[in-house]
Amino acid sequence: MISPAVTGSANSNVPTAGPARPKNIIIMIGDGMGPAYTTAYRYYKDNPETEEIEQTVFDRLLVGMSSTYPASVSGYVTDSAASATALATGFKSYNGAISVDTEKRSLPTLMEKAKTLGLATGVAVTSQVNHATPAAFLAHNESRRNYIDIAESYLNSDADVILGGGQQYFSDSLLAQFTAKGYQHINEFSQLDAISAPKVLGLFADVQLPWAINDNQSHKLSKMTQKAIDLLSQNQQGFVLLVEGSLIDWAGHSNDIATAMGEMDEFAAAIEVVEQFVRQSKDTLVVITADHNTGGLSVGANDKYEWNPAVLHKVKASPDEIAARAVADNNWQDVIATLIGFTPTEAEYALLDNARMQGNAPLTIALRKLIDVHSNTGWTSGGHTAVDVQVFSSGPGARLFSGHQDNIDIANKVMSLLPLSAVKQ
Amino acid sequence: MISPAVTGSANSNVPTAGPARPKNIIIMIGDGMGPAYTTAYRYYKDNPETEEIEQTVFDRLLVGMSSTYPASVSGYVTDSAASATALATGFKSYNGAISVDTEKRSLPTLMEKAKTLGLATGVAVTSQVNHATPAAFLAHNESRRNYIDIAESYLNSDADVILGGGQQYFSDSLLAQFTAKGYQHINEFSQLDAISAPKVLGLFADVQLPWAINDNQSHKLSKMTQKAIDLLSQNQQGFVLLVEGSLIDWAGHSNDIATAMGEMDEFAAAIEVVEQFVRQSKDTLVVITADHNTGGLSVGANDKYEWNPAVLHKVKASPDEIAARAVADNNWQDVIATLIGFTPTEAEYALLDNARMQGNAPLTIALRKLIDVHSNTGWTSGGHTAVDVQVFSSGPGARLFSGHQDNIDIANKVMSLLPLSAVKQ
Ligand SMILES: [Zn+2]
Ligand SMILES: [Zn+2]
Repeated sequence: MISPAVTGSANSNVPTAGPARPKNIIIMIGDGMGPAYTTAYRYYKDNPETEEIEQTVFDRLLVGMSSTYPASVSGYVTDSAASATALATGFKSYNGAISVDTEKRSLPTLMEKAKTLGLATGVAVTSQVNHATPAAFLAHNESRRNYIDIAESYLNSDADVILGGGQQYFSDSLLAQFTAKGYQHINEFSQLDAISAPKVLGLFADVQLPWAINDNQSHKLSKMTQKAIDLLSQNQQGFVLLVEGSLIDWAGHSNDIATAMGEMDEFAAAIEVVEQFVRQSKDTLVVITADHNTGGLSVGANDKYEWNPAVLHKVKASPDEIAARAVADNNWQDVIATLIGFTPTEAEYALLDNARMQGNAPLTIALRKLIDVHSNTGWTSGGHTAVDVQVFSSGPGARLFSGHQDNIDIANKVMSLLPLSAVKQ
Repeated sequence: MISPAVTGSANSNVPTAGPARPKNIIIMIGDGMGPAYTTAYRYYKDNPETEEIEQTVFDRLLVGMSSTYPASVSGYVTDSAASATALATGFKSYNGAISVDTEKRSLPTLMEKAKTLGLATGVAVTSQVNHATPAAFLAHNESRRNYIDIAESYLNSDADVILGGGQQYFSDSLLAQFTAKGYQHINEFSQLDAISAPKVLGLFADVQLPWAINDNQSHKLSKMTQKAIDLLSQNQQGFVLLVEGSLIDWAGHSNDIATAMGEMDEFAAAIEVVEQFVRQSKDTLVVITADHNTGGLSVGANDKYEWNPAVLHKVKASPDEIAARAVADNNWQDVIATLIGFTPTEAEYALLDNARMQGNAPLTIALRKLIDVHSNTGWTSGGHTAVDVQVFSSGPGARLFSGHQDNIDIANKVMSLLPLSAVKQ
């Protein structure tokens, strides 16, 4: 008798049958989501009442890992721009580059190739839509910091769906130009439901969307993702969609574990929407990765063999939100105890009091550190680190992403899966 | 024209042909070797003179990842004993357990099953041979700290090859019992060459072997691994061998990046020995993983987007060795500058002077921190952290280890690949 393990495949997400080439491709990027984030998220989601530790969507879909280093001029640690350039074009560039090479020449992007082949394209992100990651998929610029330039160049992207934040970068005259090009422009999240056909430019916040932890389980990224899929599916040739959990990185830069887990949950929920679509459609490939790791997060720290995610579940708002409310309230001790989910000790209150007298930002930092101490979470940086990131995939072609690869390999593999030529409409 | 990427496999280490069941199984454990270690090692090995970043043996062999959490009684962060128990038996237990369950009952091990089936077994490690990881493969004990007990119980392991350190745990009378059981006992590494048949008990240090960085490229782990393979191959039924790069973890506990990279190089060289054997023998499976991550290592830190491995190549001895020499030498500034590979600034010398006056240990720590600053390396703990570890494999059955799995799954998959019944000799 041969045991099933000998003949079966370990990864049930990589079908051996089905079409060799996908009709639709969905790229999902957890910005800053290194391996410690997906591990932390598993234990954060674990039900401590059961002996078993439940698998997450990341566990179900893992196929490989990826290195993330930028062009050698920028050393070994990438920023989001160089990494997004690698993922969007298949070329290494310098930190700050938006789909231009080290000589600042434009590099052809996945989205441009998709357009040439008659596919629909779109982006759905939780940052401003013109932030580094989506920018590298839809534009070219010598610097990620040229936000206005990048927003203007989206006019020429021909993207069918653009959803996220960033109202402050889109002037009335720019918006008029989008409308003239056939885009419906919406500013309210509640308007998204009624959109029934591309093109659409949805800008739902001045800059980034609200932290998920403060957003009452509204799962905006899931809803944007589902709407993008619905709209892009109207193109019979297929589509390429970029979805980004942008704010995982922002929480990581702030060394804010409670907020980071909220953003992980937001991203995981969006992946589950896509996982469902991939299962049903059978002709859609999803490839999920991170652009780099942020913050040097460690799950456990300070010589102690423990990590206490139960602490994080009790935190009812982001530390910056808790700080804002506590600074404005004389009864600040109660405000903090209620929102942080536990009563600080006298010594802890003394530290918080001192921070509160210095204002919002110092109190925010003190609250994050208090949550770190109670959850035993560690960080080494307010920037990025170079650890390899994971690659997750499902659908036709998923097998290609197994094992170790570099981030430019991911782009090149995805591009190799595009249709060979445009189908005449 | 179909591009090769569409039909080819991304991981060339997982052959589709060849025997379904291996004759020999080699388990290799990089103790404490989380994803940041293999990433750091790639950039440490990179030749900065070339634009390309060369792949390491880890990159060539990566197939999946593994969670490492212990039995729920010990939370989410494992120690080496619980993790080795999981890898050796397929069962979760408490931190400290040596192949016993949470009720302290013995659990059948991979090595015991292999013996029942007529296979040869062996261990080759850089720690003392009775340290937690090899102990869980060869013994049962309620505590990893019972070193003498564990050493004595090796008498009943019937293991054919036992190579590593640990002379202090093996009394003359215990050694006499090993000899009575047919073991050749050697204490000098130079004697290993002459050993031509099992059984052998080689103890080459009082406790652990010397740090690789101080050991003049002697690659003792590679030599022990090659000798173990040669000896165990004499069994026509096949063998199961455990190889551990034990001291990666020890360097990690000390937050000692220069020494850790030396140990990574030692372990990688041993993997390359095995990789070569797997390629030639075609009937050998190697599975490589880590038992957990140590130190919360981050490749880059302190808000800076850089990591400088060139600094580490110039370090000529471990910080503890440099400290010992500098404490004993009036000309200590020159000793340090020579051995650390750069001339500290005046401010740095002042810090070192202060530490030196406090003795060996404080100077060792100060040197490690100085190397961290210059290389921009980060740490969050002197203990372990819970981040998932990687799984690398090649040979018949390697495919089973792809994607996400738990450490007990690794053991169960390996056991499923053992012969179905003993071949009569
Ligand atoms: Zn970032
Ligand atoms: Zn350890």
